[in-house]
Amino acid sequence: AEVALSGDGRMGIVYDGNDAQFSSRIRARFTMTGESDAGLSFGGTFRVDQENYSSNSFRSAARGTAGAVWISGTYGKLSMGDTVSASEAAVGDLYDIGYTEGSFAGDYEEISYLTGDGENLNQGPNILYEYSYNNFKFYASASDGSDNLVCGVGAVTGSDAVCNVPGDDDKSDTAWSLAAAYDAGNYNVGLGYARHGDAKEIVLGGEATFNQFSVKAVIADYKDRGWAPGYDFDKTYGISAKYAANALTVKANWRRDEVNSLIAGVDDESFDSYGIGADYDLGGGATVAGGISKSDYIDDTVADFGIKFKF
Amino acid sequence: AEVALSGDGRMGIVYDGNDAQFSSRIRARFTMTGESDAGLSFGGTFRVDQENYSSNSFRSAARGTAGAVWISGTYGKLSMGDTVSASEAAVGDLYDIGYTEGSFAGDYEEISYLTGDGENLNQGPNILYEYSYNNFKFYASASDGSDNLVCGVGAVTGSDAVCNVPGDDDKSDTAWSLAAAYDAGNYNVGLGYARHGDAKEIVLGGEATFNQFSVKAVIADYKDRGWAPGYDFDKTYGISAKYAANALTVKANWRRDEVNSLIAGVDDESFDSYGIGADYDLGGGATVAGGISKSDYIDDTVADFGIKFKF
Amino acid sequence: AEVALSGDGRMGIVYDGNDAQFSSRIRARFTMTGESDAGLSFGGTFRVDQENYSSNSFRSAARGTAGAVWISGTYGKLSMGDTVSASEAAVGDLYDIGYTEGSFAGDYEEISYLTGDGENLNQGPNILYEYSYNNFKFYASASDGSDNLVCGVGAVTGSDAVCNVPGDDDKSDTAWSLAAAYDAGNYNVGLGYARHGDAKEIVLGGEATFNQFSVKAVIADYKDRGWAPGYDFDKTYGISAKYAANALTVKANWRRDEVNSLIAGVDDESFDSYGIGADYDLGGGATVAGGISKSDYIDDTVADFGIKFKF
Repeated sequence: AEVALSGDGRMGIVYDGNDAQFSSRIRARFTMTGESDAGLSFGGTFRVDQENYSSNSFRSAARGTAGAVWISGTYGKLSMGDTVSASEAAVGDLYDIGYTEGSFAGDYEEISYLTGDGENLNQGPNILYEYSYNNFKFYASASDGSDNLVCGVGAVTGSDAVCNVPGDDDKSDTAWSLAAAYDAGNYNVGLGYARHGDAKEIVLGGEATFNQFSVKAVIADYKDRGWAPGYDFDKTYGISAKYAANALTVKANWRRDEVNSLIAGVDDESFDSYGIGADYDLGGGATVAGGISKSDYIDDTVADFGIKFKF
Repeated sequence: AEVALSGDGRMGIVYDGNDAQFSSRIRARFTMTGESDAGLSFGGTFRVDQENYSSNSFRSAARGTAGAVWISGTYGKLSMGDTVSASEAAVGDLYDIGYTEGSFAGDYEEISYLTGDGENLNQGPNILYEYSYNNFKFYASASDGSDNLVCGVGAVTGSDAVCNVPGDDDKSDTAWSLAAAYDAGNYNVGLGYARHGDAKEIVLGGEATFNQFSVKAVIADYKDRGWAPGYDFDKTYGISAKYAANALTVKANWRRDEVNSLIAGVDDESFDSYGIGADYDLGGGATVAGGISKSDYIDDTVADFGIKFKF
Repeated sequence: AEVALSGDGRMGIVYDGNDAQFSSRIRARFTMTGESDAGLSFGGTFRVDQENYSSNSFRSAARGTAGAVWISGTYGKLSMGDTVSASEAAVGDLYDIGYTEGSFAGDYEEISYLTGDGENLNQGPNILYEYSYNNFKFYASASDGSDNLVCGVGAVTGSDAVCNVPGDDDKSDTAWSLAAAYDAGNYNVGLGYARHGDAKEIVLGGEATFNQFSVKAVIADYKDRGWAPGYDFDKTYGISAKYAANALTVKANWRRDEVNSLIAGVDDESFDSYGIGADYDLGGGATVAGGISKSDYIDDTVADFGIKFKF
């Protein structure tokens, strides 16, 4: 059993359409691994910034709500903590672009999964099970037994032990997901299903590589999933591509969100986001990267440029 | 002088009498050690989750209110920070049970010491001195010079520099404790005394080991120690036992708290808590553990089960 | 690319003129370094207590507002994050005294620089560029593009994206600084200039070493720099000296602040602070240290004494 230390950093500039702002960060990660006498592997990992014990009990590695622990053997791998959902594990996100890996443009390359992934943040640990069989991989995930999506004002009558706020939502809708993926080497596909109360999600994704060129597409179909008041979140689909030539990788991505109006006479709406970017690997863990993006969610064209580090 | 890194994690389930909830965590610990030219040892230790610099100034290793530093030589060991009291150092707690080491049942195996140990949390660093002489060990501890037990509303008139709240308690009752322990190898005993203002504590504890069987008992007698309004905390006593057979350890514990009514016509009360548990050592730092517990403080029978890791 | 771990700790007593309080702390630092294939050095560093992700977004290494990252090559070194200003990099502070390295007396040995250094704390990352040419060193620094000095109440009309409070100051006065230093081995001098909006700073400092004796003096002249209401901060000057004899170092420092009254009939004022201290190196990273200080900013004579550790 041992604890390994790694880190990442970046320094650069983000242009938000009006001002160029400095953007930098430095983070450290603990990765712990061990093996029982019978050969069961176990481990855990978290970053220092995921340890916010006093300030955020729902995002703290020491409370099981950030980072993750796992055990792994011939029967698969079981993770607990801030895990992704089965859908996300099987399908994943579009290729990110830019120095800040998409966050300069609102991270639209990250598909909005129904569970895990920033949803149901006010819950306890999530759980994810993964099992490999030849080229297939199977996934199952579930959120904690208590649904703490709505705490405090606006919540259904009741008192939730996790929220500890009078008037909390005390119905316990576990969010869960099932998914499978097939990896043929030069292409892979994934299919996922998730539920949380009445809300449903089906996600299909695929990725293919032709020599130096790769392409990845994802389509997600939601049912009874909320959006802004008066709308339901209906569909997301997007495609991304990258081309690698020695140290240089050029990338592009595009995503559309479709939302349905719930009010007669009000139109449905759709939102497009797209961008291009490039990475240049300097070796030794340093990469120069930049991106430029346009999104219906953001008024201006935004861009970033800088250098990223892996330690 | 060097910094060593270790960690611990766990993943499992806690049953609170109504729901089974996922329970996991992952934590990292820094342990720093050095030696002066003259052979004085020194060091310090804290976990990442004990560093809450901005969010909790009374629980932060960089403020001396979590973790601890120490120096150690032929004249004994002196620790400062979030140390236990002399009483607690000499006597300690009952054996814990379960995957969460007692926290699923409110940690009743932890004797409620008058100083250190979660009391007087809003103070600066505590200090603990330990000295060994043959089989004897002597302990002395003290809290910081300022008593910040009562901050804000309800406090005695005055302004306390640590609380920084008008109306704070500005009397400075240092909490202190003296204790001694004797270790004969197959049995040990400890006796501690503590004071904080008018409140007093005498604690006696003993532990004996017969082959694979161990038993530990503690009795604490308090004077003028507060409890819920209308009551004084009078006594705590408890006993715990464990039996180890190869990788398996079976444990049981029981504790009773007696509180005296301060109001004529209202009865005194007592609260029982007890439980059983088992640990199975998988080797390599992994242990499967579970416990079941019943307490007058909790409406339902509670249980936990899971796997614990040491890295 | 690698991550190194170091730490520091201390335990002792601070006497605030009325009470002696325990004072201790323990901290861990990550230092990450790497080198690109072409020989560009890069790295970053932060302490665990500089990671306050949820509780303080303006003081968090993972947000670029604590700690720093850098790249370094033949064209100089560029740092981003919580860097000092060019002025401070070139001139620096007076010698500190005492076990707490000056903080027991309000850190008056730290010259009050116009940018970086605890000013403009509510901004994003700062940037510092350093270039060496023979015995000369040149510095340039700038704060982030947005001036978030005044957030919320009292701010100029507008909404600042960083403050996220209605009524924020939305004018964008970048604070910047230029400085140069000359190091002749047994003496060095530094000169710095800084601006932030209308406020200006010129700082001159010099240090000389004669055998075991060293002396350092700094003078800073400010223009249109605020102080308490009704005053402008006009000047700071101070001198410090130290004498090293084997393991023992004796130190003394003195600083005067001059503030100009902006109201007719109200006098200008000046504030003196001074102190003496001594360090005794025990070897292996342990140092016994103490100081005593008197300041016009503090009612009482204050002192500290304790042992410091480097791990």
